[in-house]
Amino acid sequence: MIFLSPERPTLFLDEWKCKRNINKIASKAAQNGIRFTPHFKTHQSLEIGEWFRDEGVISITVSSVKMASYFASGGWNDITIAFPFFRSQISALKHLERSVNLRLFVNNPEDVFLLNDQLQNSFRVIAEMDPGYGRSGIESTNQKGLESLMEACQKTEKATFSGFYIHDGRTYQTGDPQRALEQGKSVLDLFSSLKSTYPGTPLIFGDTPSASLLDHFGDADEITPGNFVFYDWMQVLIGSCSIDEVALFCQLPVAQKRPELGHWILHGGAAHLSKDFVHEEGSISYGQTVELSGKSVTVKKGCYISSLSQEHGVMKVTCEPDIRDAVTICPIHSCLTANLHDHYLTTDGRRIEKRILS
Amino acid sequence: MIFLSPERPTLFLDEWKCKRNINKIASKAAQNGIRFTPHFKTHQSLEIGEWFRDEGVISITVSSVKMASYFASGGWNDITIAFPFFRSQISALKHLERSVNLRLFVNNPEDVFLLNDQLQNSFRVIAEMDPGYGRSGIESTNQKGLESLMEACQKTEKATFSGFYIHDGRTYQTGDPQRALEQGKSVLDLFSSLKSTYPGTPLIFGDTPSASLLDHFGDADEITPGNFVFYDWMQVLIGSCSIDEVALFCQLPVAQKRPELGHWILHGGAAHLSKDFVHEEGSISYGQTVELSGKSVTVKKGCYISSLSQEHGVMKVTCEPDIRDAVTICPIHSCLTANLHDHYLTTDGRRIEKRILS
Repeated sequence: MIFLSPERPTLFLDEWKCKRNINKIASKAAQNGIRFTPHFKTHQSLEIGEWFRDEGVISITVSSVKMASYFASGGWNDITIAFPFFRSQISALKHLERSVNLRLFVNNPEDVFLLNDQLQNSFRVIAEMDPGYGRSGIESTNQKGLESLMEACQKTEKATFSGFYIHDGRTYQTGDPQRALEQGKSVLDLFSSLKSTYPGTPLIFGDTPSASLLDHFGDADEITPGNFVFYDWMQVLIGSCSIDEVALFCQLPVAQKRPELGHWILHGGAAHLSKDFVHEEGSISYGQTVELSGKSVTVKKGCYISSLSQEHGVMKVTCEPDIRDAVTICPIHSCLTANLHDHYLTTDGRRIEKRILS
Repeated sequence: MIFLSPERPTLFLDEWKCKRNINKIASKAAQNGIRFTPHFKTHQSLEIGEWFRDEGVISITVSSVKMASYFASGGWNDITIAFPFFRSQISALKHLERSVNLRLFVNNPEDVFLLNDQLQNSFRVIAEMDPGYGRSGIESTNQKGLESLMEACQKTEKATFSGFYIHDGRTYQTGDPQRALEQGKSVLDLFSSLKSTYPGTPLIFGDTPSASLLDHFGDADEITPGNFVFYDWMQVLIGSCSIDEVALFCQLPVAQKRPELGHWILHGGAAHLSKDFVHEEGSISYGQTVELSGKSVTVKKGCYISSLSQEHGVMKVTCEPDIRDAVTICPIHSCLTANLHDHYLTTDGRRIEKRILS
């Protein structure tokens, strides 16, 4: 493993662990006999996308039209845009449908008719359901809303109604394996009831805690998690993974040691880690300090990023770690941390390109 | 003013207001007879840098070696790197000193000797002082530490001791004009005492609240603020500026209106705004909704981004705003928001490039 002293904040990716994570979820989907349409918003890399192909993945999920275009440029032609369709996307979608078989989240019949009118090719419509999380989608109790969407698809030539989708972000908010598991199971309960009301309609769900914690997916027909490709400290706390499964770390140069204040100053701030944080033992942490040795990861309890400005990180140190030039941080939220970098370095020093900025 | 319905989150820059902000602070520095070395980490754009040249600026401040290289490529050759020097920067600095007259933050004599040994050209050393903020620098009470640095510079051939620098980030934390002003004045009090102890040593300070709120800069010889170029909602709350002086806004497409829940879903999340927030009237706001009409900005009280995920923003709406397709958001912290975008659109539709990622 190469860990040079970096001159600037650097993302390190353990390729072996990343591939193992992909294999774990792909295998679990296969064992359950359901489709696996991974979300690519976390890694945003054509090369890492190829690692999914090696596991038989042919359909992917993204969170914007722009991200879909990026992966289309890498030959992906079955793409779900897991964000509500809105009208100013039309011209970009017209371009995209030339090479991509689109699956779109549509919230109302008028937009189904508009898409049918504007697009050249057939497209698939997903009804995003909100089970009470409060983000986007049609309320799961709004039967009329769901059925009017299905009817609109039947009335049009190009739209095919292709399923119900639920992303229940509340599993991220629990911070607790048992409660995350219960939240995940409540989606499966909802799927049971949908299965009897709408037999034959595909049931899709997506979050990493559920995909990681559940062994069986009940009546679900498809899963679309994304974060599991790297995992992160938030997922360790939720219980989705162990620290040894986290595949992404940020190495930050030490700029100044201030033992008299109980902290060190690192070159690495909100511009490199993001400002996502967790509450842990009464404190706010923007990143957990670890030590890597081969495949083994040691969590340095009491050492974590306690505050951040644009380029400065303040790392609380309750004991004097045996670290000279650079600190390794397990990011709180790997999706947002990765989004701030233009490449990954593998632990053997190879550069992996990714797209930059959403 | 052109405000097309965007297909994705878009940064809008009011060029006229931005130039007025630059002129305001440049004029204030000139009236006080002190140097103005603006921090360029906020805009990170060669073109916007040229607007500063029009105000007579020839020396600039940046927060990383990489950012210095970017501005060096635009012909800037007097650059202060306002981040503590650390040893793995040496090879990048050797490259940079070929075209740039460097001014560096150095915290200890050993590093002065190392730089003297490794660099080819003369360089300037700044002692960053920590007046109790707790980030980087030498404690302002540590006279021995400060003087050993000055002595090291005297002993070397290439290093010139060039001043004391204070960035007191506590002015950002006050959230209150009176307290921010008092915090700024406490730095000036410290400067008075330094002036008598070390006559002739330049005294430099940097934060935007102080530069905006103070009319007179006491014994200070130089100011280096950055954020004022755009300002933002945090600065409005601190009192550094009025909403009419904010020059940067983010336009976000409306993806779904959910009046039954009291909120709308926007295409625009942590990947476009950052996760910086303010506490306001008992709530957390990740961005303030406004309406623009020519040069006039109307704050839509009760409408703000109340939660964020990677690409989704949830905008609380307490009244039904007269908005159809896209919402204009005043960012909480323009430095971090700008850092997430690769260009600005001026209000008359011209694209201004910027560097991407720190």
